Amino acid sequence: MELNKRQMEILEIVKANVPITGEHISERLGLARATIRPDLAILTMAGYLDARPRVGYFYSGKKPAQSIEESMIGMKVRDFQSMPVVVTEQISVYDAICHIFLEDVGTLYVVDNDSYLTGVLSRKDLLRTSLGGNDLNKMPVHVIMTRMPNITYCKKQDTLIDVAKKMIDKQIDSLPVIEENVDGLNVVGRITKTNITAAFLSLGDEHEL
Amino acid sequence: MELNKRQMEILEIVKANVPITGEHISERLGLARATIRPDLAILTMAGYLDARPRVGYFYSGKKPAQSIEESMIGMKVRDFQSMPVVVTEQISVYDAICHIFLEDVGTLYVVDNDSYLTGVLSRKDLLRTSLGGNDLNKMPVHVIMTRMPNITYCKKQDTLIDVAKKMIDKQIDSLPVIEENVDGLNVVGRITKTNITAAFLSLGDEHEL
Repeated sequence: MELNKRQMEILEIVKANVPITGEHISERLGLARATIRPDLAILTMAGYLDARPRVGYFYSGKKPAQSIEESMIGMKVRDFQSMPVVVTEQISVYDAICHIFLEDVGTLYVVDNDSYLTGVLSRKDLLRTSLGGNDLNKMPVHVIMTRMPNITYCKKQDTLIDVAKKMIDKQIDSLPVIEENVDGLNVVGRITKTNITAAFLSLGDEHEL
Repeated sequence: MELNKRQMEILEIVKANVPITGEHISERLGLARATIRPDLAILTMAGYLDARPRVGYFYSGKKPAQSIEESMIGMKVRDFQSMPVVVTEQISVYDAICHIFLEDVGTLYVVDNDSYLTGVLSRKDLLRTSLGGNDLNKMPVHVIMTRMPNITYCKKQDTLIDVAKKMIDKQIDSLPVIEENVDGLNVVGRITKTNITAAFLSLGDEHEL
Protein backbone atom coordinates (compact mmCIF):
# COMPACT_ATOMS: atom_id res chain seq x y z
CA MET A 1 0.00 0.00 0.00
CA GLU A 2 1.27 3.44 -0.85
CA LEU A 3 0.88 6.22 1.65
CA ASN A 4 -0.55 9.51 0.46
CA LYS A 5 0.93 12.94 1.07
CA ARG A 6 -1.10 13.62 4.21
CA GLN A 7 -0.19 10.27 5.71
CA MET A 8 3.48 10.96 5.06
CA GLU A 9 3.08 14.36 6.75
CA ILE A 10 1.46 12.74 9.76
CA LEU A 11 4.35 10.29 10.00
CA GLU A 12 6.81 13.19 9.99
CA ILE A 13 4.85 15.04 12.67
CA VAL A 14 4.74 11.99 14.92
CA LYS A 15 8.45 11.28 14.40
CA ALA A 16 9.30 14.83 15.51
CA ASN A 17 6.87 15.03 18.44
CA VAL A 18 6.56 11.59 19.87
CA PRO A 19 4.20 10.91 21.65
CA ILE A 20 1.53 13.15 20.22
CA THR A 21 -2.27 13.01 20.43
CA GLY A 22 -4.55 12.93 17.41
CA GLU A 23 -5.86 16.29 18.53
CA HIS A 24 -2.41 17.85 18.33
CA ILE A 25 -1.66 16.26 14.96
CA SER A 26 -4.86 17.71 13.50
CA GLU A 27 -3.98 21.14 14.92
CA ARG A 28 -0.56 21.07 13.32
CA LEU A 29 -2.10 20.15 9.98
CA GLY A 30 -4.86 22.74 10.35
CA LEU A 31 -7.44 20.05 9.73
CA ALA A 32 -10.43 18.74 11.63
CA ARG A 33 -9.85 15.73 13.87
CA ALA A 34 -12.46 13.78 11.90
CA THR A 35 -10.62 14.42 8.65
CA ILE A 36 -7.45 12.71 9.72
CA ARG A 37 -9.13 9.89 11.67
CA PRO A 38 -9.05 7.45 8.70
CA ASP A 39 -5.41 8.35 8.04
CA LEU A 40 -4.48 7.60 11.65
CA ALA A 41 -6.43 4.34 11.48
CA ILE A 42 -4.58 3.35 8.31
CA LEU A 43 -1.16 4.26 9.67
CA THR A 44 -1.88 2.33 12.86
CA MET A 45 -3.28 -0.75 11.16
CA ALA A 46 -0.47 -0.81 8.62
CA GLY A 47 1.98 -0.76 11.50
CA TYR A 48 3.59 2.64 10.93
CA LEU A 49 2.20 4.12 14.14
CA ASP A 50 1.59 2.67 17.57
CA ALA A 51 -1.40 4.14 19.38
CA ARG A 52 -1.42 4.07 23.19
CA PRO A 53 -4.69 5.10 24.86
CA ARG A 54 -4.45 8.36 26.85
CA VAL A 55 -0.85 8.89 25.69
CA GLY A 56 -0.88 9.35 21.97
CA TYR A 57 0.78 8.09 18.84
CA PHE A 58 4.29 6.69 18.60
CA TYR A 59 6.37 6.14 15.50
CA SER A 60 6.97 2.39 15.17
CA GLY A 61 10.09 2.75 13.06
CA LYS A 62 8.58 0.68 10.26
CA LYS A 63 9.59 1.91 6.84
CA PRO A 64 7.17 1.81 3.94
CA ALA A 65 7.46 -1.75 2.59
CA GLN A 66 9.90 -2.27 -0.23
CA SER A 67 8.31 -3.84 -3.25
CA ILE A 68 9.97 -6.63 -5.16
CA GLU A 69 10.76 -4.24 -8.04
CA GLU A 70 12.49 -1.92 -5.61
CA SER A 71 14.50 -4.83 -4.20
CA MET A 72 15.47 -5.94 -7.68
CA ILE A 73 16.38 -2.45 -8.89
CA GLY A 74 18.60 -2.18 -5.83
CA MET A 75 20.60 -5.26 -6.90
CA LYS A 76 23.65 -3.93 -8.68
CA VAL A 77 26.42 -5.75 -10.54
CA ARG A 78 29.06 -4.55 -8.04
CA ASP A 79 27.32 -6.38 -5.19
CA PHE A 80 27.25 -9.75 -6.96
CA GLN A 81 30.18 -9.81 -9.41
CA SER A 82 33.08 -12.29 -9.29
CA MET A 83 36.76 -11.78 -10.01
CA PRO A 84 37.66 -11.84 -13.71
CA VAL A 85 40.20 -14.31 -15.06
CA VAL A 86 42.31 -12.61 -17.68
CA VAL A 87 44.80 -13.96 -20.24
CA THR A 88 46.90 -12.29 -22.94
CA GLU A 89 46.33 -12.61 -26.68
CA GLN A 90 49.51 -14.61 -27.24
CA ILE A 91 48.65 -17.45 -24.85
CA SER A 92 47.98 -20.82 -26.55
CA VAL A 93 44.55 -22.44 -26.73
CA TYR A 94 45.98 -25.32 -24.69
CA ASP A 95 47.08 -23.00 -21.90
CA ALA A 96 43.73 -21.22 -22.01
CA ILE A 97 41.93 -24.53 -21.44
CA CYS A 98 44.26 -25.22 -18.50
CA HIS A 99 43.34 -21.82 -17.06
CA ILE A 100 39.64 -22.68 -17.35
CA PHE A 101 40.24 -25.71 -15.14
CA LEU A 102 42.72 -24.15 -12.76
CA GLU A 103 40.51 -21.16 -12.07
CA ASP A 104 37.28 -23.12 -12.43
CA VAL A 105 35.56 -20.54 -14.61
CA GLY A 106 33.43 -20.76 -17.73
CA THR A 107 34.90 -17.75 -19.52
CA LEU A 108 38.29 -16.10 -19.91
CA TYR A 109 38.85 -12.47 -20.87
CA VAL A 110 41.63 -11.63 -23.26
CA VAL A 111 43.56 -8.36 -22.90
CA ASP A 112 46.24 -6.62 -24.95
CA ASN A 113 49.62 -5.42 -23.68
CA ASP A 114 47.99 -2.35 -22.10
CA SER A 115 45.58 -4.63 -20.20
CA TYR A 116 42.59 -3.46 -22.22
CA LEU A 117 39.85 -5.93 -23.15
CA THR A 118 40.17 -7.30 -26.69
CA GLY A 119 38.39 -10.64 -26.56
CA VAL A 120 36.34 -13.27 -24.77
CA LEU A 121 36.90 -17.05 -24.71
CA SER A 122 34.07 -19.32 -23.63
CA ARG A 123 34.24 -23.00 -22.75
CA LYS A 124 32.28 -23.57 -25.93
CA ASP A 125 34.84 -21.70 -28.09
CA LEU A 126 37.61 -23.82 -26.60
CA LEU A 127 35.71 -27.09 -26.98
CA ARG A 128 34.98 -26.30 -30.64
CA THR A 129 38.63 -25.58 -31.31
CA SER A 130 39.80 -28.69 -29.52
CA LEU A 131 37.75 -30.76 -31.97
CA GLY A 132 39.33 -29.18 -35.02
CA GLY A 133 42.44 -31.34 -35.04
CA ASN A 134 44.80 -28.36 -34.67
CA ASP A 135 47.87 -28.28 -32.49
CA LEU A 136 46.40 -26.48 -29.49
CA ASN A 137 49.86 -25.68 -28.17
CA LYS A 138 50.73 -23.67 -31.25
CA MET A 139 47.48 -21.82 -31.78
CA PRO A 140 47.23 -18.46 -29.97
CA VAL A 141 43.84 -17.58 -28.48
CA HIS A 142 43.47 -14.37 -30.48
CA VAL A 143 42.72 -16.56 -33.51
CA ILE A 144 39.57 -18.04 -31.97
CA MET A 145 38.33 -15.47 -29.45
CA THR A 146 35.21 -13.36 -29.81
CA ARG A 147 36.44 -9.82 -30.49
CA MET A 148 35.30 -6.31 -29.77
CA PRO A 149 32.87 -4.87 -30.81
CA ASN A 150 31.03 -8.21 -30.55
CA ILE A 151 31.51 -8.43 -26.80
CA THR A 152 28.57 -7.70 -24.53
CA TYR A 153 29.75 -6.09 -21.32
CA CYS A 154 28.34 -4.25 -18.34
CA LYS A 155 29.37 -1.81 -15.64
CA LYS A 156 29.47 -2.02 -11.85
CA GLN A 157 26.50 0.26 -11.39
CA ASP A 158 24.22 -1.64 -13.80
CA THR A 159 21.30 -3.53 -12.32
CA LEU A 160 21.21 -7.32 -12.29
CA ILE A 161 17.91 -7.09 -14.18
CA ASP A 162 19.69 -5.42 -17.12
CA VAL A 163 22.46 -7.98 -17.04
CA ALA A 164 20.06 -10.93 -16.81
CA LYS A 165 18.11 -9.55 -19.80
CA LYS A 166 21.29 -9.32 -21.87
CA MET A 167 22.24 -12.89 -20.92
CA ILE A 168 18.87 -14.25 -21.99
CA ASP A 169 18.51 -12.11 -25.13
CA LYS A 170 22.03 -12.79 -26.42
CA GLN A 171 22.29 -16.34 -25.07
CA ILE A 172 25.53 -15.75 -23.20
CA ASP A 173 26.61 -17.18 -19.86
CA SER A 174 28.67 -14.31 -18.54
CA LEU A 175 29.59 -10.67 -19.10
CA PRO A 176 32.80 -8.86 -18.29
CA VAL A 177 32.35 -5.94 -15.90
CA ILE A 178 34.36 -3.05 -17.33
CA GLU A 179 35.45 0.46 -16.56
CA GLU A 180 35.65 2.77 -19.52
CA ASN A 181 38.91 4.54 -20.05
CA VAL A 182 40.05 7.03 -22.69
CA ASP A 183 42.10 4.34 -24.42
CA GLY A 184 40.06 1.22 -23.82
CA LEU A 185 38.11 -0.97 -21.45
CA ASN A 186 39.52 -2.23 -18.17
CA VAL A 187 38.14 -5.57 -17.00
CA VAL A 188 37.28 -5.24 -13.31
CA GLY A 189 34.96 -8.21 -12.83
CA ARG A 190 32.75 -10.85 -14.35
CA ILE A 191 29.11 -11.55 -13.81
CA THR A 192 27.71 -14.98 -14.57
CA LYS A 193 24.46 -16.91 -14.40
CA THR A 194 25.86 -18.34 -11.16
CA ASN A 195 25.86 -14.82 -9.72
CA ILE A 196 22.28 -14.34 -10.93
CA THR A 197 21.31 -17.66 -9.33
CA ALA A 198 22.86 -16.49 -6.05
CA ALA A 199 20.96 -13.20 -6.37
CA PHE A 200 17.74 -15.12 -6.96
CA LEU A 201 18.32 -16.99 -3.71
CA SER A 202 19.25 -13.85 -1.76
CA LEU A 203 15.99 -12.26 -2.89
CA GLY A 204 14.18 -14.95 -0.92
CA ASP A 205 16.44 -14.69 2.11
CA GLU A 206 16.25 -10.91 2.32
CA HIS A 207 12.52 -11.04 2.75
CA GLU A 208 12.40 -14.00 5.07
CA LEU A 209 10.44 -13.24 8.21
CA MET B 1 -0.18 -4.69 4.80
CA GLU B 2 -2.19 -7.58 6.14
CA LEU B 3 -5.95 -7.30 6.29
CA ASN B 4 -7.67 -8.20 9.54
CA LYS B 5 -10.63 -10.52 9.92
CA ARG B 6 -13.24 -7.77 9.72
CA GLN B 7 -11.68 -6.31 6.60
CA MET B 8 -11.71 -9.74 4.96
CA GLU B 9 -15.40 -10.09 5.90
CA ILE B 10 -16.16 -6.71 4.38
CA LEU B 11 -14.41 -7.75 1.16
CA GLU B 12 -16.55 -10.90 1.03
CA ILE B 13 -19.75 -8.93 1.62
CA VAL B 14 -18.91 -6.44 -1.14
CA LYS B 15 -17.96 -9.23 -3.55
CA ALA B 16 -21.34 -10.89 -3.01
CA ASN B 17 -23.47 -7.73 -3.06
CA VAL B 18 -21.82 -5.29 -5.41
CA PRO B 19 -22.52 -2.34 -5.29
CA ILE B 20 -23.33 -1.94 -1.63
CA THR B 21 -23.43 1.11 0.64
CA GLY B 22 -21.42 1.48 3.83
CA GLU B 23 -24.72 1.54 5.69
CA HIS B 24 -25.70 -1.88 4.36
CA ILE B 25 -22.28 -3.35 5.05
CA SER B 26 -22.48 -2.23 8.68
CA GLU B 27 -25.98 -3.71 8.99
CA ARG B 28 -24.81 -7.06 7.71
CA LEU B 29 -21.97 -7.08 10.20
CA GLY B 30 -24.23 -5.91 13.04
CA LEU B 31 -21.83 -3.05 13.71
CA ALA B 32 -22.16 0.71 13.86
CA ARG B 33 -21.35 2.62 10.69
CA ALA B 34 -18.64 4.55 12.57
CA THR B 35 -16.95 1.32 13.63
CA ILE B 36 -16.30 0.13 10.11
CA ARG B 37 -15.46 3.56 8.66
CA PRO B 38 -11.68 3.13 9.15
CA ASP B 39 -11.87 -0.35 7.63
CA LEU B 40 -13.64 0.98 4.56
CA ALA B 41 -11.10 3.79 4.29
CA ILE B 42 -8.25 1.30 4.48
CA LEU B 43 -9.77 -1.07 1.94
CA THR B 44 -10.41 1.84 -0.42
CA MET B 45 -6.99 3.42 -0.03
CA ALA B 46 -5.24 0.10 -0.39
CA GLY B 47 -7.13 -0.44 -3.64
CA TYR B 48 -9.29 -3.41 -2.68
CA LEU B 49 -12.53 -1.46 -2.93
CA ASP B 50 -13.70 1.27 -5.26
CA ALA B 51 -16.05 3.79 -3.68
CA ARG B 52 -18.50 5.67 -5.91
CA PRO B 53 -20.42 8.51 -4.32
CA ARG B 54 -24.17 7.85 -4.04
CA VAL B 55 -23.76 4.33 -5.41
CA GLY B 56 -21.67 2.39 -2.98
CA TYR B 57 -18.62 0.17 -2.80
CA PHE B 58 -17.34 -2.03 -5.63
CA TYR B 59 -14.86 -4.85 -5.42
CA SER B 60 -11.80 -3.85 -7.44
CA GLY B 61 -10.65 -7.41 -8.06
CA LYS B 62 -7.30 -6.73 -6.44
CA LYS B 63 -6.05 -9.68 -4.48
CA PRO B 64 -4.16 -9.27 -1.22
CA ALA B 65 -0.58 -8.67 -2.34
CA GLN B 66 1.56 -11.78 -2.69
CA SER B 67 4.80 -11.56 -0.83
CA ILE B 68 8.06 -12.32 -2.58
CA GLU B 69 8.41 -15.58 -0.62
CA GLU B 70 4.99 -16.67 -1.80
CA SER B 71 5.91 -15.83 -5.41
CA MET B 72 9.15 -17.73 -5.13
CA ILE B 73 7.63 -20.78 -3.44
CA GLY B 74 5.11 -20.84 -6.29
CA MET B 75 7.91 -21.16 -8.87
CA LYS B 76 8.18 -24.85 -9.66
CA VAL B 77 10.66 -26.72 -11.82
CA ARG B 78 7.93 -27.83 -14.21
CA ASP B 79 7.13 -24.23 -15.13
CA PHE B 80 10.71 -23.33 -16.07
CA GLN B 81 12.42 -26.54 -17.19
CA SER B 82 13.87 -27.14 -20.66
CA MET B 83 13.89 -30.27 -22.80
CA PRO B 84 16.62 -32.77 -21.89
CA VAL B 85 19.15 -33.90 -24.48
CA VAL B 86 19.85 -37.57 -24.03
CA VAL B 87 22.53 -39.88 -25.47
CA THR B 88 23.32 -43.56 -24.97
CA GLU B 89 26.32 -44.95 -23.09
CA GLN B 90 27.94 -46.33 -26.23
CA ILE B 91 28.11 -43.03 -28.12
CA SER B 92 31.68 -41.69 -28.65
CA VAL B 93 33.04 -38.60 -26.90
CA TYR B 94 33.42 -37.02 -30.33
CA ASP B 95 29.75 -37.52 -31.13
CA ALA B 96 28.78 -36.26 -27.69
CA ILE B 97 30.66 -33.01 -28.33
CA CYS B 98 28.86 -32.69 -31.66
CA HIS B 99 25.55 -33.11 -29.82
CA ILE B 100 26.51 -30.31 -27.42
CA PHE B 101 26.90 -27.98 -30.40
CA LEU B 102 23.98 -29.26 -32.47
CA GLU B 103 21.55 -28.97 -29.57
CA ASP B 104 23.29 -25.94 -28.06
CA VAL B 105 23.23 -27.26 -24.51
CA GLY B 106 25.77 -27.33 -21.70
CA THR B 107 25.00 -30.82 -20.44
CA LEU B 108 24.02 -34.19 -21.91
CA TYR B 109 22.26 -36.96 -20.02
CA VAL B 110 23.35 -40.53 -20.61
CA VAL B 111 20.81 -43.36 -20.48
CA ASP B 112 21.02 -47.14 -20.64
CA ASN B 113 19.14 -49.40 -23.05
CA ASP B 114 15.98 -49.08 -20.95
CA SER B 115 16.22 -45.27 -21.18
CA TYR B 116 17.05 -44.90 -17.50
CA LEU B 117 19.51 -42.27 -16.36
CA THR B 118 23.03 -43.57 -15.78
CA GLY B 119 25.27 -40.55 -16.28
CA VAL B 120 25.80 -36.87 -16.92
CA LEU B 121 28.26 -35.23 -19.32
CA SER B 122 29.12 -31.58 -18.85
CA ARG B 123 30.95 -29.29 -21.29
CA LYS B 124 33.74 -29.32 -18.76
CA ASP B 125 33.98 -33.15 -18.75
CA LEU B 126 34.19 -33.15 -22.54
CA LEU B 127 36.73 -30.34 -22.67
CA ARG B 128 38.94 -32.14 -20.14
CA THR B 129 38.80 -35.34 -22.18
CA SER B 130 39.52 -33.56 -25.44
CA LEU B 131 42.81 -32.36 -23.94
CA GLY B 132 43.91 -35.84 -22.98
CA GLY B 133 45.23 -36.84 -26.37
CA ASN B 134 42.87 -39.80 -26.72
CA ASP B 135 41.08 -40.79 -29.90
CA LEU B 136 37.72 -39.18 -29.17
CA ASN B 137 36.05 -41.26 -31.87
CA LYS B 138 36.94 -44.49 -30.15
CA MET B 139 36.23 -43.52 -26.55
CA PRO B 140 32.64 -44.19 -25.39
CA VAL B 141 31.09 -41.59 -23.08
CA HIS B 142 30.44 -44.07 -20.27
CA VAL B 143 34.18 -43.98 -19.55
CA ILE B 144 34.18 -40.28 -18.67
CA MET B 145 30.66 -39.48 -17.49
CA THR B 146 29.63 -38.68 -13.92
CA ARG B 147 27.68 -41.71 -12.71
CA MET B 148 24.85 -42.42 -10.35
CA PRO B 149 24.74 -42.07 -7.35
CA ASN B 150 26.89 -38.94 -7.83
CA ILE B 151 24.25 -37.20 -9.93
CA THR B 152 22.20 -34.43 -8.35
CA TYR B 153 18.71 -34.39 -9.79
CA CYS B 154 15.33 -32.86 -9.07
CA LYS B 155 11.65 -33.45 -9.73
CA LYS B 156 9.00 -31.43 -11.54
CA GLN B 157 7.24 -30.38 -8.38
CA ASP B 158 10.40 -29.10 -6.66
CA THR B 159 10.70 -25.35 -6.12
CA LEU B 160 13.24 -23.29 -8.03
CA ILE B 161 14.62 -22.16 -4.67
CA ASP B 162 15.58 -25.77 -3.83
CA VAL B 163 17.13 -26.26 -7.25
CA ALA B 164 19.06 -22.97 -7.10
CA LYS B 165 20.41 -23.91 -3.67
CA LYS B 166 21.64 -27.26 -4.99
CA MET B 167 23.31 -25.54 -7.94
CA ILE B 168 25.16 -23.10 -5.71
CA ASP B 169 26.06 -25.62 -2.98
CA LYS B 170 27.30 -28.30 -5.37
CA GLN B 171 28.69 -25.91 -7.99
CA ILE B 172 26.78 -27.45 -10.87
CA ASP B 173 25.25 -25.69 -13.86
CA SER B 174 22.24 -27.91 -14.47
CA LEU B 175 20.16 -30.71 -13.00
CA PRO B 176 18.20 -33.42 -14.78
CA VAL B 177 14.50 -33.43 -13.97
CA ILE B 178 13.53 -37.03 -13.33
CA GLU B 179 10.53 -39.22 -12.66
CA GLU B 180 11.15 -42.11 -10.32
CA ASN B 181 10.21 -45.50 -11.57
CA VAL B 182 10.43 -48.95 -9.98
CA ASP B 183 13.43 -49.83 -12.16
CA GLY B 184 15.16 -46.49 -12.52
CA LEU B 185 14.97 -42.78 -13.22
CA ASN B 186 13.36 -41.39 -16.34
CA VAL B 187 14.80 -38.08 -17.55
CA VAL B 188 11.90 -35.76 -18.36
CA GLY B 189 13.65 -32.39 -18.41
CA ARG B 190 16.63 -30.31 -17.48
CA ILE B 191 16.87 -27.20 -15.41
CA THR B 192 19.81 -24.84 -15.81
CA LYS B 193 21.12 -21.54 -14.51
CA THR B 194 19.63 -20.05 -17.67
CA ASN B 195 16.20 -21.15 -16.46
CA ILE B 196 16.92 -19.61 -13.05
CA THR B 197 18.02 -16.39 -14.76
CA ALA B 198 14.76 -16.35 -16.71
CA ALA B 199 12.86 -16.95 -13.47
CA PHE B 200 14.71 -14.07 -11.82
CA LEU B 201 13.56 -11.80 -14.65
CA SER B 202 9.99 -13.07 -14.53
CA LEU B 203 9.86 -12.26 -10.84
CA GLY B 204 10.29 -8.61 -11.77
CA ASP B 205 7.80 -8.74 -14.63
CA GLU B 206 5.11 -10.44 -12.60
CA HIS B 207 5.01 -7.61 -10.15
CA GLU B 208 5.31 -4.82 -12.67
CA LEU B 209 2.53 -2.30 -12.33
